[in-house]
Amino acid sequence: MGKERLLSLDTTCREDKQVTREIAAVALEKDKTVAAFDRLLVKAMLKGVGNPPISIRLWNNEEIRPEGASGGERLVIRDRRALYQLILNPELHFGELYSAGRIDVEGDLPALLASIYRAINRPDTAWLSFLIAKWRKRSRRANTLSRARRNIHRHYDIGNDFYQLWLDREYAQYTCAYFPGPDMSLEEAQEAKMHHVCRKLRLRPGLSVVEAGCGWGGFARFMASKYGVKVRAYNISHQQVLHAREKVKSEDIAGQVEYIEDDYRNIHGDYDIFVSIGMLEHVGIENYGELGRVIDRCLKENGAGLIHSIGRNQPGLLNSWIEAKIFPGACPPSLGQMMNILEPLEFSVLDVENLRLHYALTLQHWLSRFEGQQDVVRQMFDEHFVRAWRLYLSGSIAAFTSGQMQLFQVLFTRKHNNDLAMTRAHLYG
Amino acid sequence: MGKERLLSLDTTCREDKQVTREIAAVALEKDKTVAAFDRLLVKAMLKGVGNPPISIRLWNNEEIRPEGASGGERLVIRDRRALYQLILNPELHFGELYSAGRIDVEGDLPALLASIYRAINRPDTAWLSFLIAKWRKRSRRANTLSRARRNIHRHYDIGNDFYQLWLDREYAQYTCAYFPGPDMSLEEAQEAKMHHVCRKLRLRPGLSVVEAGCGWGGFARFMASKYGVKVRAYNISHQQVLHAREKVKSEDIAGQVEYIEDDYRNIHGDYDIFVSIGMLEHVGIENYGELGRVIDRCLKENGAGLIHSIGRNQPGLLNSWIEAKIFPGACPPSLGQMMNILEPLEFSVLDVENLRLHYALTLQHWLSRFEGQQDVVRQMFDEHFVRAWRLYLSGSIAAFTSGQMQLFQVLFTRKHNNDLAMTRAHLYG
Repeated sequence: MGKERLLSLDTTCREDKQVTREIAAVALEKDKTVAAFDRLLVKAMLKGVGNPPISIRLWNNEEIRPEGASGGERLVIRDRRALYQLILNPELHFGELYSAGRIDVEGDLPALLASIYRAINRPDTAWLSFLIAKWRKRSRRANTLSRARRNIHRHYDIGNDFYQLWLDREYAQYTCAYFPGPDMSLEEAQEAKMHHVCRKLRLRPGLSVVEAGCGWGGFARFMASKYGVKVRAYNISHQQVLHAREKVKSEDIAGQVEYIEDDYRNIHGDYDIFVSIGMLEHVGIENYGELGRVIDRCLKENGAGLIHSIGRNQPGLLNSWIEAKIFPGACPPSLGQMMNILEPLEFSVLDVENLRLHYALTLQHWLSRFEGQQDVVRQMFDEHFVRAWRLYLSGSIAAFTSGQMQLFQVLFTRKHNNDLAMTRAHLYG
Repeated sequence: MGKERLLSLDTTCREDKQVTREIAAVALEKDKTVAAFDRLLVKAMLKGVGNPPISIRLWNNEEIRPEGASGGERLVIRDRRALYQLILNPELHFGELYSAGRIDVEGDLPALLASIYRAINRPDTAWLSFLIAKWRKRSRRANTLSRARRNIHRHYDIGNDFYQLWLDREYAQYTCAYFPGPDMSLEEAQEAKMHHVCRKLRLRPGLSVVEAGCGWGGFARFMASKYGVKVRAYNISHQQVLHAREKVKSEDIAGQVEYIEDDYRNIHGDYDIFVSIGMLEHVGIENYGELGRVIDRCLKENGAGLIHSIGRNQPGLLNSWIEAKIFPGACPPSLGQMMNILEPLEFSVLDVENLRLHYALTLQHWLSRFEGQQDVVRQMFDEHFVRAWRLYLSGSIAAFTSGQMQLFQVLFTRKHNNDLAMTRAHLYG
């Protein structure tokens, strides 16, 4: 599984490679010198991403430090061709080049990436992001049942052992935790997140819950054991479902939890509660109407639901490298886009909470555990994989810190349901 | 002022009157008998609004009680022409006929209206609501600067004395209160609402606030005196601004609060905080882009904002009688539509709270005070006015109770602002 994925991590888009080769054929010299033209290209590249305050060191150790650069973080470009590739498509090639070790970062990787994120969407570069987004939107493929299964397979089936190295131990939550206290451990914060969601949904013994996208099954076990509910949990990742079924076997709640290897579109039955944590990112905007109808079909008259998802401040697409290499088919929605799930069916939105900075904290925990286990990961896969995942985790920290990404929890009920908590004080008792 | 408005309340749409007259010319008989045809029409009318479980009493005292009607509430139709008008356009004519005393309600008026609201949007009548909404949307006029002023004048300038009869005494809040304790007085709940908003915005001494649509100025005084901020408060209602200026004169905070008689589109300056309570309903969907640009123009880099507005579960229009006679130009948005204010400028939504049931409670307080003062109101205006406002307040209770209307508080910041409260616990300390 891991090997198959590694191959795909190693391949850049064929078209881009071709263009790069042509430029390189003209300009590439075998020596290690830096020409005036190269320096111009570096400045053009920095300008193209909004002139972030970062220093660049080139393959001959020459340093280019723009005005305002603190010098704390430094991008190292190890060969001329890497520079050309960065200029052609920085969003896509940064990840490839970093993974291959042809560019590197000295200093704090998340901090460097955050300063790029902060710079990149300033008004003078916004048109570029807009054009790229337009083009990518046109070329984006819909998440059909079979493509959804392939996409999920590529990310989640690379091995349960790998994720267990750096996720929280008991519940393996691969989603944003909740840190009501800043010094909480990852384990405490993931439990706090699950309690927070259960309290928002006012779970109580006897209720029936359907979970769409259940990961390794941790939250379903948590709801059953801590809140006494019955859960049917859906997931299309074969590896995750196997793990979840194995894990629940030995527990008292085995009769209360059922894991089903199937797509959310095939959910059937009547439930008091619909909950989905970290699945919507993989659904695809084009399927939101259908997701709404699935919820409408399976929710009882006095039902309530919660969707927890990475989101954005305005419609747009995921970083293209992450979409191509880490999360195929993923697309985090704006809050307005999320309303396309709920408004056609007249669901009533009760509460939206944005936990963006909690995701940055969660990712810092993950990154630190990942780094602590990097030798094990290198043995499981290879150096390219270690670097790719370091960049993905660091880039995600940067995206949540800089406000590039949001984390929305949206609580809703059916229109006529008046069995509501009058205030949210019960979440903070 | 009051007289001018009364005239407009007394006029139904000219075209509808004409049609009614034509039907009436054929069918109207001078006697008090009820024909089989009338009974058919009653049933058709009930079917048209989704067969709500309510009884009808006709002008000859004959009662028609549909299956499932509890008999607790009863609609009384006092003449044949009233029945015809109801059938032609129930949404518009119900208000007119009730105000004129030609239809009446025995039992609990809000309860009867809520049962109609619950019935009316069932699938078999939804197509009708859809067509009506389409037509009304096409014929709706944009809120230009001058029309906005006229619209606001018609509702808010009918006399400060009138509103003071039934709003909370100190701050005259004509918006949804907040009842963290169910037995709170209206005065306590309005103060709780204002504290809730100030805490969401984390107001502290020295901050500058711009308020768009300040009513009689109560919230601006509250923010200045309780949280030590400086406030510039905008309103296009001449009567309200005069009142607000007069009221603040005698207080210590006079130097901290400035009331400006102008449209939100003319807001200038730089502020830490943008706040707007109960203005968005009057802005009109077509102006949301401009409102967003106004907020963007006037908010500092680390600024935050809050918009408090009546809303809906999905896009649609206000009840046509209320829009025609009570709130000209008003249109409560869905949450998705509200995002058209914030997403184009990449504002980051932190928190959305739906206080629908709090508005039902607020309106019950208002209605009960209004009824207690009805003799005074009748003397200020006349019986038609008393009945129109009773219906408007009761209908609003029904709309919030049945989930027809929502109340959204949307908190947001600029994209790069990381000075956020990690949790919402400080709202519930």
